[in-house]
Amino acid sequence: MLRVIGLGPGDASLLAPAAAAALDAAAAIVGYKRYVELIPASFLVGKRVVSTGMTAEIERCREAIALALSGVSTVLVSSGDPGIYGMAGLVLELMESAALWERLELEIVPGIPALAAAAALLGAPLMHDFAVVSLSDLLTPWELIERRLAAATAADFVLALYNPRSKKRDWQLRRALDILLEHKSPATPVGIVRQAYREGQAVAVATLGSLEVAAVDMLSIVIVGNAQTRCAGGKMFTPRGYKDKYEV
Amino acid sequence: MLRVIGLGPGDASLLAPAAAAALDAAAAIVGYKRYVELIPASFLVGKRVVSTGMTAEIERCREAIALALSGVSTVLVSSGDPGIYGMAGLVLELMESAALWERLELEIVPGIPALAAAAALLGAPLMHDFAVVSLSDLLTPWELIERRLAAATAADFVLALYNPRSKKRDWQLRRALDILLEHKSPATPVGIVRQAYREGQAVAVATLGSLEVAAVDMLSIVIVGNAQTRCAGGKMFTPRGYKDKYEV
Repeated sequence: MLRVIGLGPGDASLLAPAAAAALDAAAAIVGYKRYVELIPASFLVGKRVVSTGMTAEIERCREAIALALSGVSTVLVSSGDPGIYGMAGLVLELMESAALWERLELEIVPGIPALAAAAALLGAPLMHDFAVVSLSDLLTPWELIERRLAAATAADFVLALYNPRSKKRDWQLRRALDILLEHKSPATPVGIVRQAYREGQAVAVATLGSLEVAAVDMLSIVIVGNAQTRCAGGKMFTPRGYKDKYEV
Repeated sequence: MLRVIGLGPGDASLLAPAAAAALDAAAAIVGYKRYVELIPASFLVGKRVVSTGMTAEIERCREAIALALSGVSTVLVSSGDPGIYGMAGLVLELMESAALWERLELEIVPGIPALAAAAALLGAPLMHDFAVVSLSDLLTPWELIERRLAAATAADFVLALYNPRSKKRDWQLRRALDILLEHKSPATPVGIVRQAYREGQAVAVATLGSLEVAAVDMLSIVIVGNAQTRCAGGKMFTPRGYKDKYEV
């Protein structure tokens, strides 16, 4: 049995009981080093723990599948939700390649995604239609990412940007903001949340015109408002339209 | 103190401990009838429970704010995540209108959103960039919804459709699918998840060309794949590109 679980943001107070139960029941826990470190130690004691580096996704998934096939009850962890830029998709791809559908029982346990955690700390920026785009061009052609940014901005979606910037990918965020500025006002609120509900949490709001890209790193998520998004009382929120309709 | 919390899909196994603690600590619990019914009875005993009908969002938020201002520790519940088509935004709008920033302490507790719950049951359809659109035109002009659907489809986003169809809004989904069909293949997988992790749960996969709109209701969420999304082993998933890059 293989369970692919989401840890949520990382704090135990936001870990679903189903995910905690899966960790409890597992004989082996597999995950990216940084995510395994988020798991309370009590879940790890006496277990086989396999934690690997950032680019070893395929190795990690293969190892988890091999362990589960050998009869070891195994949990593969993602942070946030395993189905949003997490490990669930790769596991299914590998199961398909190796024709494992009949041989391996798989359960996916959803978690609180990084976008929901970031939004809660900012206020309520995702209250209207939104688009989620990863700025990592390691696996996706940059041209496609640009096309998606332009399309979503032109149609006035709120945008949640994953993997906005890293040491090796340092120019993409600036380019992305320039694309957004072709359609959105420079006064559009932008929320930057780093390490949501984790040690080192930082929440900031800037505008599209003033955002300093150097303040954003790979542990951050960036949320860019739509034309209605505003800030008040230190909160960033996108009205859904009740006010216009019902004169709140 | 007002806490706006997400119940997640509804099952207690997916309710975050922070949300459970908020329910425990509250003297009053306010919410839409159908969502209050999802809360385990043990949380409700001995409390003031205010549950109202579907279109009474503003009344509900006002009542929750009034209770909290009167010194009653209050929780306002949303299903899923309160920041995704939930109650968090309206609370902030009302706090702004009444200039309550200094007088009312607000905490938003995120939850597992319906889109993540639906995706986990389907497989991993949201593994690549996706757009989230509500088909309800009660508060949003239908023209804007059409524009967003067209833009997201042309840029090959995966789409998660909220509020796809109700008794009163019975033509929007058909129209939306027709817009998607202008850009996407009729063979594109479409997942329909009704009552995820609740009584009456139903999970189905169709294609964009074959989907029967009559099978979709207001308790469903619809996820439409991108050009890479496929089905195998009864699962719907969107590859992220590892296979092309690393020849998995």
